[in-house]
Amino acid sequence: MKRNLLKNMPFKAITEIGEFGLIDKIATLVAPTLTALPELLTGIGDDCAVYRPSAELLQVSTTDILAEQVHFDLLTTPLKHLGSKAISVNVSDICAMNGLPRYALISLAVPASFPITMIEELYAGISDAAQKYGLAIAGGDTSSSRSGLVISVTMVGEVSPEQVTHRSGAKPGDLICVTGTLGGAAAGLKLLMREKEIMLNHLENNEPYTKSAIGELQEYREAIQAQLLPIARIDIVRLFHEQNIHPTSMIDISDGLSSDLQHLCRHSKTGALLHETLLPIHENTRRIADELQDDALTWALAGGEDYQLLLTLSKERYQTIAGNRAISVIGEMTAPELGITLEDAFGMSIPLESIRGFDHFSS
Amino acid sequence: MKRNLLKNMPFKAITEIGEFGLIDKIATLVAPTLTALPELLTGIGDDCAVYRPSAELLQVSTTDILAEQVHFDLLTTPLKHLGSKAISVNVSDICAMNGLPRYALISLAVPASFPITMIEELYAGISDAAQKYGLAIAGGDTSSSRSGLVISVTMVGEVSPEQVTHRSGAKPGDLICVTGTLGGAAAGLKLLMREKEIMLNHLENNEPYTKSAIGELQEYREAIQAQLLPIARIDIVRLFHEQNIHPTSMIDISDGLSSDLQHLCRHSKTGALLHETLLPIHENTRRIADELQDDALTWALAGGEDYQLLLTLSKERYQTIAGNRAISVIGEMTAPELGITLEDAFGMSIPLESIRGFDHFSS
Repeated sequence: MKRNLLKNMPFKAITEIGEFGLIDKIATLVAPTLTALPELLTGIGDDCAVYRPSAELLQVSTTDILAEQVHFDLLTTPLKHLGSKAISVNVSDICAMNGLPRYALISLAVPASFPITMIEELYAGISDAAQKYGLAIAGGDTSSSRSGLVISVTMVGEVSPEQVTHRSGAKPGDLICVTGTLGGAAAGLKLLMREKEIMLNHLENNEPYTKSAIGELQEYREAIQAQLLPIARIDIVRLFHEQNIHPTSMIDISDGLSSDLQHLCRHSKTGALLHETLLPIHENTRRIADELQDDALTWALAGGEDYQLLLTLSKERYQTIAGNRAISVIGEMTAPELGITLEDAFGMSIPLESIRGFDHFSS
Repeated sequence: MKRNLLKNMPFKAITEIGEFGLIDKIATLVAPTLTALPELLTGIGDDCAVYRPSAELLQVSTTDILAEQVHFDLLTTPLKHLGSKAISVNVSDICAMNGLPRYALISLAVPASFPITMIEELYAGISDAAQKYGLAIAGGDTSSSRSGLVISVTMVGEVSPEQVTHRSGAKPGDLICVTGTLGGAAAGLKLLMREKEIMLNHLENNEPYTKSAIGELQEYREAIQAQLLPIARIDIVRLFHEQNIHPTSMIDISDGLSSDLQHLCRHSKTGALLHETLLPIHENTRRIADELQDDALTWALAGGEDYQLLLTLSKERYQTIAGNRAISVIGEMTAPELGITLEDAFGMSIPLESIRGFDHFSS
């Protein structure tokens, strides 16, 4: 009904073009500004913008906005975790360029009635995470908000011109690798949503609810941490720098493996073949999926928010890190005409286009 | 009533410490992160953070968040103007460090039902302004919002180590100067608020309202432009660079002359004496104040959003630009024990503390 109503309006809403349509439109609108700055090597369209302040240095910069009720729910999200996550998701974008974070600026729009202790919690999480990643909080802006908490983090990192890694650059034959495990963040989100419903039912019936979602759901601890406290893979970037390994392309998994692999393929002009049996899905994630009568494979492909790195390596390069258990080979880049497909456990080919990741404006 | 209610709550709300109390608290909370980055020369507490990516270059960076119903009202603000203003307020912060803008990242939280044409308008304003100031839009983030439009802009600029200008650095005896005129933005805001009321009255009574606030209020054009389309004083920064003029301290007027001069004095450890008769208030602003039975002096001192530069110069340096009509001398820095005062037209001294600028969290 609501969609039909919108269809009859004299304007086109963002929902009709989706998040990626919106980004493309914005990129076109700001394109004329790029001529002012030849030192800007990459604008909109990669995990970070790339800027060359001097001959031997590249800066990579990224920004992420987190809005209450869209990205987080204060009923199920401790503010300290939220602060930490706001930092991690930006570090993850810097890592996806093979860069290391240097400093961040943080803007906050917050209702004036917000308790100061909650702001302290939020910044304790921000500060802890920043120290863990070795970056400085250099500044920011504060404003009141008429409508919930909004956190906007902008981060600047650095990388040498030899090490910078883009979404483009993969070649057919390169191995597709992913760090860590997939689907855990989606499992955690589903658990928190179930817990919220239980909590609200208790409240409605005037029954006491004493469990704290994160504290007492011990058996699901890993999945809930994957959702609330993701850790950006700065360890992998440091390993690449130490071992002089250059991925041919890289992206972080924020929208979901399916969607993010499609980005790599589009930018690199390749196809891809994934193997279901190679996808690193933790046994706990499978157990939770069974319990919730949901599908761990869908979580791994389209759940998003795992903040692992998806990267491609030439077969020769891969030999150097073949023993590393934090990095799994999950498939191979192919010629573009072969499309982007998943071979499932029964040998059937499924086009990945049919499995969609998260779109903020999908209707 | 509402305040009493809050007072009895077991927590302290942000309103109780105000915007500057909140900023101080945040600065303390993130202080431990600063040790990670010795190249960060200035963190929270100036118009920009200052970072040294290489020996001969400084980067200045700033961020501003604009929230619907707090910073702008879509009823009275054309989106193209809003886009332009979002850029200008950040350029103004870069200018306040005597720097020139290089690139910006823009995050947008927007209701999914928002018409695409409105986003196009917004980005047309952003793109036009960026081209005017010679900076590139390098990236950003888009998200849906459950509650109105939020725009967060982060900007990175550059300045040589010899030219960078801080809030600290003024000495007793330095002349206090301001660019352009003051109070115009406040006059424009009051006019727009009056116009909005007229508009809503028309709507309530089912009478047609055809005037477009910006288009047909021609007699108030300058004041309304000062509010909706402020222009950052990049021209003054270029003049300073060309003529090799080094202000001893500088800040942009966003909160209001009174509040922003107090920042300069606190950071420079000086007092200040302003002369009412020297304040550059446009005759149109005085006329509007008379018409609205309001006070142009209060607008000039506490209205805020003029985005002019407030700066101090040694008397010798001032001679170089003494003929420049865009820069007015309005007073002199004094010894700190003399306090920060305004001498009014009758020779009376008024402590500036009693005139407060805008505080997002004042109750």
